[in-house]
Amino acid sequence: MTVYLVGAGPGDADLLTVRAAQLLATADVVLHDRLIGADVLDLIRPGCQRIDVGKTPGLSHSQAAINEALITAGRSYERVVRLKGGDPFVFGRGGEEALALREAGVTCEVVPGITSAFAGPLLAGVPVTHRGAAHGVSIVTGRAKDGSSVDFTSLANPDMTLVVLMGVARRGDIARQLITGGLAPSTPVCVIERASSPTQRTTRATLDELEGLDVSNPAVIVVGDVAAVDLGLLSHYDALASSSS
Amino acid sequence: MTVYLVGAGPGDADLLTVRAAQLLATADVVLHDRLIGADVLDLIRPGCQRIDVGKTPGLSHSQAAINEALITAGRSYERVVRLKGGDPFVFGRGGEEALALREAGVTCEVVPGITSAFAGPLLAGVPVTHRGAAHGVSIVTGRAKDGSSVDFTSLANPDMTLVVLMGVARRGDIARQLITGGLAPSTPVCVIERASSPTQRTTRATLDELEGLDVSNPAVIVVGDVAAVDLGLLSHYDALASSSS
Repeated sequence: MTVYLVGAGPGDADLLTVRAAQLLATADVVLHDRLIGADVLDLIRPGCQRIDVGKTPGLSHSQAAINEALITAGRSYERVVRLKGGDPFVFGRGGEEALALREAGVTCEVVPGITSAFAGPLLAGVPVTHRGAAHGVSIVTGRAKDGSSVDFTSLANPDMTLVVLMGVARRGDIARQLITGGLAPSTPVCVIERASSPTQRTTRATLDELEGLDVSNPAVIVVGDVAAVDLGLLSHYDALASSSS
Repeated sequence: MTVYLVGAGPGDADLLTVRAAQLLATADVVLHDRLIGADVLDLIRPGCQRIDVGKTPGLSHSQAAINEALITAGRSYERVVRLKGGDPFVFGRGGEEALALREAGVTCEVVPGITSAFAGPLLAGVPVTHRGAAHGVSIVTGRAKDGSSVDFTSLANPDMTLVVLMGVARRGDIARQLITGGLAPSTPVCVIERASSPTQRTTRATLDELEGLDVSNPAVIVVGDVAAVDLGLLSHYDALASSSS
């Protein structure tokens, strides 16, 4: 009677952890996010019950209903897997689910996954930290889920790489706030769409050009000197993609 | 003739990616960091040449010599794996290695790994982002490898979780700078030592108590409201550990 909150990584089934693959192969029931890819879902044990929480009436728009479904499943089955894109605790709301399970007395284990905030840039040949280019890296979302708005002016730090998840819709606003906060309009930016998929695409520009780019979600935006680095890597994904870099 | 820069994750072999495990099982030669665990090294193909760059004279203290060894191996073998703790591009200096390989005309592919900056807190039951507690997360190292010193006053943002890798030696200085920058002395902190190992240990305190804590490397320091969250998770590692939380 354990609920496993499992990170599915950026999309490619080969980027699951060994532990995640083992849990999918032995689960009694899997509740998964809408955007989990077919190759990952193919690893689920035949006969295992599957619930797409993004398509199930009552679950698709309510975190409270998802928490309740996890509690019910955790009380009914030996091995419940809650499969989430990326990492459960990096904007995954896994903390809320773990807390709800704890309060209900249901045992919970969390398995980390590779966040697209790092895998996206990596697969595009962009190192989020790089000697001489960045002291560190910050990650935020463009969409603030609790209604409050992220203040990007306070994130304008030229020594830090900034990675923005789900920021495409607000990209003009984000760029303006970062420039107001002190970043140069010529600061390099890089947008990676559909990271780790066959249609992965990388677009490079500068901060003042970000709003005008023809890009769409799911995408990762990288702001900072590292965004101009192109390591020219071999990539399974880039090789298949049209790149505008 | 490809060099694969592969992230080994936080330590536990089950937290390798499926792709990393496949590459270790088929490599001709593996050059690995000193701190890679025995369980991970056990996945290397029998008969594969192994080079511990941390113990090999000439390689142990010179990034340039490691780059040269990778180029030589990449020109001599079909499948070379460069195995690095965590993720190759999150303070892994993987960018420098990829660049050196590119300049030498050696094909390079990078495989992401789970950074201990996220896995450490997760395995201790601390979500680095959490509704109402953090808009995002920043990662820096305590040790600045290029000689320049990280300015922690500019990282004092109460809306962001701060994760510091390799910061134990400088922890007093880091706390003072963060307080100077505006963080409350009562800001929660959490130190996770030896994450994902059987001796993983979690210590919770406040920012003004950080310097006095009895902690040692390898460790991850988490600063911010999320450091006070304890999800009470089941953990393979915590179960075996003495926790002072």
